[in-house]
Amino acid sequence: LKKVAVVGTGHTKFGKRNDVTIRELAFEAIKEAFEDCGVTPSDVGFTVVANYGVFSEDICPAPYILEYAGLNPKGAMRVEAACASGSAAIHVAYWAVQSGLTDLALAVGVEKMFQVDTPTAVELLGRAGDILWEFIPFGTTFPGYYAMIATDHMNKYGTTEEQLAMVAVKNHKYGAMNPLAQLQREITVEDALKSRVIAWPLKLYDCCLISDGAAAVILASEDKAKKITDTPIWILGLGSATDTGYLARREDISTLRSAVLASKQAYKMAGIEPKDVDVAEVHDCFTIAEIIAYEDLGFCNKGEGGKLIEEEQTYIGGKIPVNVDGGLKSKGHPIGASGVAMAAEITKQLRGEAGKRQVPDAEIGLVHNVGAAGQFCYVTIYGRNY
Amino acid sequence: LKKVAVVGTGHTKFGKRNDVTIRELAFEAIKEAFEDCGVTPSDVGFTVVANYGVFSEDICPAPYILEYAGLNPKGAMRVEAACASGSAAIHVAYWAVQSGLTDLALAVGVEKMFQVDTPTAVELLGRAGDILWEFIPFGTTFPGYYAMIATDHMNKYGTTEEQLAMVAVKNHKYGAMNPLAQLQREITVEDALKSRVIAWPLKLYDCCLISDGAAAVILASEDKAKKITDTPIWILGLGSATDTGYLARREDISTLRSAVLASKQAYKMAGIEPKDVDVAEVHDCFTIAEIIAYEDLGFCNKGEGGKLIEEEQTYIGGKIPVNVDGGLKSKGHPIGASGVAMAAEITKQLRGEAGKRQVPDAEIGLVHNVGAAGQFCYVTIYGRNY
Repeated sequence: LKKVAVVGTGHTKFGKRNDVTIRELAFEAIKEAFEDCGVTPSDVGFTVVANYGVFSEDICPAPYILEYAGLNPKGAMRVEAACASGSAAIHVAYWAVQSGLTDLALAVGVEKMFQVDTPTAVELLGRAGDILWEFIPFGTTFPGYYAMIATDHMNKYGTTEEQLAMVAVKNHKYGAMNPLAQLQREITVEDALKSRVIAWPLKLYDCCLISDGAAAVILASEDKAKKITDTPIWILGLGSATDTGYLARREDISTLRSAVLASKQAYKMAGIEPKDVDVAEVHDCFTIAEIIAYEDLGFCNKGEGGKLIEEEQTYIGGKIPVNVDGGLKSKGHPIGASGVAMAAEITKQLRGEAGKRQVPDAEIGLVHNVGAAGQFCYVTIYGRNY
Repeated sequence: LKKVAVVGTGHTKFGKRNDVTIRELAFEAIKEAFEDCGVTPSDVGFTVVANYGVFSEDICPAPYILEYAGLNPKGAMRVEAACASGSAAIHVAYWAVQSGLTDLALAVGVEKMFQVDTPTAVELLGRAGDILWEFIPFGTTFPGYYAMIATDHMNKYGTTEEQLAMVAVKNHKYGAMNPLAQLQREITVEDALKSRVIAWPLKLYDCCLISDGAAAVILASEDKAKKITDTPIWILGLGSATDTGYLARREDISTLRSAVLASKQAYKMAGIEPKDVDVAEVHDCFTIAEIIAYEDLGFCNKGEGGKLIEEEQTYIGGKIPVNVDGGLKSKGHPIGASGVAMAAEITKQLRGEAGKRQVPDAEIGLVHNVGAAGQFCYVTIYGRNY
């Protein structure tokens, strides 16, 4: 198998961006990625745009992003895998390089969610759920789905509301240290516990944010990577899986089967075990999702995710630092951008460029990116060495 | 480079399908593709769904199609490249097999456009144009874009309204012979010329249809293909390119630069020349688009596309038979499905299974699939022999 590396990254500030169009927002990230590795748009052979797309009048944004960024006339497409769209884009860009189509591919994720009001955004996200059997008949939205998942986990494993709050506290702590984060402020367990209930047991601080933002990564073949950077970050393993859209049909909702399968596939390809991972970005759309991710990825045994955060093992200095950029919870979650932003953060960590949020000597990093409530999961493993 | 083949195809009837949901419609095509090559859903390692997606409440259809077709828990994503989404899906499925992720991948395209009324459908399609500089300020829709393209071509090369009508006559002739076509009736040049003007010089019969429909193809690695079929149809070449979204920025609108570049890339990879193509499916969203495709693909010299149809060289028996399934014009154009349906038709032709529409001894086939007004173009070349 040919080797493929991340050679450049870009990451806008996440937050409310009424000052830019989608194409301008995407360009901010693309420009930074180009400057990061000194390549020019004409070097790029293929572009993959990740965008959920329903919040905006720009329902077909790829051509306009390419035009604005000077990427024409090279090939392109948009990909969508709900909240895992960003990772799906990286997987396609990887294949484009791996198959020899090009020696340099760009994956760019972008979303402008503030173009609609919050109830509309929650509804449009909810439509990634099963519109036939759950969304329309019951009005289930994602806080509702993850509340059911949380109560099941609490019932089976004794996970507590305090443990959920501890995930939020950790992610806000690191978000406060990240100038790109949407909410740069620390919170306490008490703040989280007394915030208003959204869908019990999930409260306001258990839920990720509605965000505008963009991120970009440039992938290169081995030869090209070695020419343009001294710090290529290699893609060691990829995995992806799906699960039923209709949650009632799943045997167990205290786990996301797609995450278990996608991570097994990625670990196998990378030839590593969970204990080899030095730093991880996991999909904390809700605090319970991060706890379940610890278990699904093998960072702890099933049912012990609550204990892992309680023991602060997912802080820098712990067993496996997780979401030390603030996560979706505090950094923000502009749907199409999130998976690409996770890859950008892991790249910085493995390069040793994460500043005061640096995980010391991080050599292997993992990105876990979930679409909807596990309908999709993409896992990607990155390494400083191949 | 590893060899990849089409081993199975499915293609629903195109038309108005108020009797099925998107997942059911997609399943009709998927089921036929499985039966075509005797594989089962659990054999498939990755699924790519092509869907433009804006006509429907199902804004995130991939998980529901996978669940309904029994394809969980394998990985999946949706891709979008406007009207070229179907070919984009096939390119991703090709890469997934080529890169060794899986030895069997499924590309399925589906669209239900009749869920909205015709003016809304035309508006939603128009939003694939430049919403910032053309769609919103001028209200430009695709009949408008292609009318400008047609008048430019008529002005430069003397192409006539009669020649445009002749494309419609040919495609209706073959559509009338195709039980899957939406409009199975022949028309005359006079019928076409006297139909009502939509955007001069384009009349009703110069425009493709609004359609519901689905198509599926199964791609396999060389080893797998040889195990499951005696008639693998090999993918010999792939190419893709883009052009500006803002049409006013193009140097020449009597050609689609993306089609010229994508086809050159595909011809080069396949090691063939335009004259080697025995049968082609081209993107006749409007009759002028088919005439320009003849030129962009090198089937005739620039400016001679009108003459090529006038001389009936794109009929069966002519120099290069084009759209002998009826094309988008008569068979229909369910956006996400179209590119996949084109691949299914070429597969049938190269297998010699196209019945009374069979191009004798067809060995090499080409699919030309355009997104918007050339914002995207994907070209794929298939061969009976590798």
